[in-house]
Amino acid sequence: MSEQVDLKLYGYWRSSATYRVRIALNLKALPYEYVPISLVADGGQHKTAEYQNINPSMLVPTFVDTDKDITLYQSLAIIEYLDEKYASGTQLMPKHTLDRARVRMYAQDIACDVQPLANSGVIKKSQTLFNANDEQTAAWSRYWISKGFTALSKKLAGRSGEYCYGYDITLVDVCLVPQVYNAERLGINMDEFPLLQKINRNCLTLDAFKDASPERQVDAK
Amino acid sequence: MSEQVDLKLYGYWRSSATYRVRIALNLKALPYEYVPISLVADGGQHKTAEYQNINPSMLVPTFVDTDKDITLYQSLAIIEYLDEKYASGTQLMPKHTLDRARVRMYAQDIACDVQPLANSGVIKKSQTLFNANDEQTAAWSRYWISKGFTALSKKLAGRSGEYCYGYDITLVDVCLVPQVYNAERLGINMDEFPLLQKINRNCLTLDAFKDASPERQVDAK
Repeated sequence: MSEQVDLKLYGYWRSSATYRVRIALNLKALPYEYVPISLVADGGQHKTAEYQNINPSMLVPTFVDTDKDITLYQSLAIIEYLDEKYASGTQLMPKHTLDRARVRMYAQDIACDVQPLANSGVIKKSQTLFNANDEQTAAWSRYWISKGFTALSKKLAGRSGEYCYGYDITLVDVCLVPQVYNAERLGINMDEFPLLQKINRNCLTLDAFKDASPERQVDAK
Repeated sequence: MSEQVDLKLYGYWRSSATYRVRIALNLKALPYEYVPISLVADGGQHKTAEYQNINPSMLVPTFVDTDKDITLYQSLAIIEYLDEKYASGTQLMPKHTLDRARVRMYAQDIACDVQPLANSGVIKKSQTLFNANDEQTAAWSRYWISKGFTALSKKLAGRSGEYCYGYDITLVDVCLVPQVYNAERLGINMDEFPLLQKINRNCLTLDAFKDASPERQVDAK
């Protein structure tokens, strides 16, 4: 218990990008210190000068290896780094170039085309700039998630097994589970996406995914 | 001239994700056939059943290797695939794990946090769902680009040389130049981002970047 932990993850319990990295750290069996950065308390702790020094983008998560003085942002970049750097636990990226490309593209289908449009910062900006009300912003988020899940379901139909890309857990699953969590919060019926729902449930039987869930974090409200 | 070209790129001249892949194909010295998919003509050629068969996400670009029957989407995944698969031309990803992570994270700063929010599909949806007018959507796009460029300028200050990540061209430059093109179209004054402006200009002295520019494409209007 007095073992020193060099890896730190600054994040927020409901941030799906943070959720991804928690899953990946668990799958890689890497102990880490979780440092909560509330996106709502104190007007947003991600906007403080102190946090801006760590991450000029004022976004979570930020990953820090205090021993090596390494600071990394962007969940997908962090996860590929962990996977390349540490042989421990689950290998999240496949070995073959083409498999790796496909895993990246499905992960980016979520991380570039869905999550950026349905996160809290974007919703807030649409409220101030477009005077969007809560009903409209919820419809906006549901639209992008449903569009993304419809396309992803078609794409994975010929690729998936127990998990998104065959029978091994990959970066795609690490991105899928937090996005399904968000979808369900927004009232999307996952019965409409049976393949994604099945994979999500398969993942959530595993401790690495369960322990990373928002509700299990120290900053969960 | 009768040489068979196996690589195809479905794209649109003004799509910045397509622009990225054009730059990468040029830097890798890979000949390819460019297949224009207009996002505006005929109500959007990306929505046709024929194109949906190629790309269920109805987005550009799509990369196809007709000889190997490989279809890939997502510009960053395509570019890393090209870089891993082909030793020709410029190596776009660094060799060291930490350098590679940083290049990915800066590229994702653009590809996940800026471009997804300021593209034509998102603008159209904000018009229909939020009744946003042209002035508001232009302000929206400028906000996300300026926010992203401000953070990226700080992050690259200690990393850049002639290009974003030191003195070799990387994936970050491939993402930066199309984003600056979009920024300038939206009336953002790049004098506010002198580091990014300098790097953009350095890139645009090179044929690989110049030949990939929107105005040089067969579908440019």
